[in-house]
Amino acid sequence: MNISDWRTYLVTQASLSGERSTVAVVSAAIDGGIDVVQLREKGTSARSRYELGLELRELTAEAGVDLIVNDRVDIARAIDADGVHVGQSDLPVGVARDLLGPDAIVGCSTSTIAKARKAEADGADYLGVGAVYGTSSKDVTDEKVGIGPKRIAEISDAVSIPVVGIGGITADNAGPVVDAGATGVAVISEITAAPDPRAATESLAAAVETSKGVGNGGGA
Amino acid sequence: MNISDWRTYLVTQASLSGERSTVAVVSAAIDGGIDVVQLREKGTSARSRYELGLELRELTAEAGVDLIVNDRVDIARAIDADGVHVGQSDLPVGVARDLLGPDAIVGCSTSTIAKARKAEADGADYLGVGAVYGTSSKDVTDEKVGIGPKRIAEISDAVSIPVVGIGGITADNAGPVVDAGATGVAVISEITAAPDPRAATESLAAAVETSKGVGNGGGA
Repeated sequence: MNISDWRTYLVTQASLSGERSTVAVVSAAIDGGIDVVQLREKGTSARSRYELGLELRELTAEAGVDLIVNDRVDIARAIDADGVHVGQSDLPVGVARDLLGPDAIVGCSTSTIAKARKAEADGADYLGVGAVYGTSSKDVTDEKVGIGPKRIAEISDAVSIPVVGIGGITADNAGPVVDAGATGVAVISEITAAPDPRAATESLAAAVETSKGVGNGGGA
Repeated sequence: MNISDWRTYLVTQASLSGERSTVAVVSAAIDGGIDVVQLREKGTSARSRYELGLELRELTAEAGVDLIVNDRVDIARAIDADGVHVGQSDLPVGVARDLLGPDAIVGCSTSTIAKARKAEADGADYLGVGAVYGTSSKDVTDEKVGIGPKRIAEISDAVSIPVVGIGGITADNAGPVVDAGATGVAVISEITAAPDPRAATESLAAAVETSKGVGNGGGA
């Protein structure tokens, strides 16, 4: 799938999925129409992430869903993922690009215009920008209250690569993020901790599509 | 350097080096004749390890000292290290080998005969076996009191690749480890926390050489 077609992006975190496995959550999200899955699972061993990654690669490949690995370029290569997502304390974008080659997807987390421009210049294919709203499931990189859709607009205007909003996003508040120029929205809790992850994915996708249709930020 | 010539092996851990930097400790160890350095630095970010790794690569390359990266195959490639060292919860030996190619060094931590044989079969070039003695600087994989030189002898007899003892080893107790069949000894605290890391390295190397000369475990 082309990155500019990403609408809904699931970041995995087993510790938030209750008694369900990450595989079960991802499977439900695929049924609900998720576009891309990021294997994150902070705090678990490389071996665990590698083994889970092999399962997720099988699931996502069958469904034509992109699979991205957080931080670990080696695990991304080992499981034949579509790419890697690096933060400001992970390997630099340019190093990830060199290791993975020109065809892989390299994404980068940022919350400022300066770092967004640098990531684009270093070869990032997309940006994960946040935390948009306050969130409890991921460290907030700017302020506890989130950077807000306004910063999404500023960064979207400053770069030419797709921007994915992340942090505290739900079906109810995704609209302003897309209206501000985000290609899509990334979530952890909204799907992972939902009573029905499939329905949560469908609702989120519908919210994004609605804004794409009527908002100022773009058009499908 | 050939792995079978490794006598002294330093595993880095900045948190144990007091006010000295890891670069300063490694530099002193190189002056003292260290044979191989492993970039470990558990608990620090990938970016920090990568940046430190670039510095250590420059230092070690100039001195003809091998540089190994703990756990992260991607960082090993990014800094052009000689290889990687994986534990039982890191990427599997075979995966590391596939990612790094046939010329890289792949080491593996183990404390049992069965896992030692499996690591060798999977393509490991050497084994880190321990904890030999009780230790406070690294998780003890077997018992708090350490597996002892006897297990070193059992594992050395069971495999044909070099065995490096690790865990609680000092210049005073290195002899029995080498006598048991270890090619060399790996330390963290003995060098990193020493008042004089260079002198500590020299003492450790002398202890190993003395046993190599008179012990049953081998001969230089």
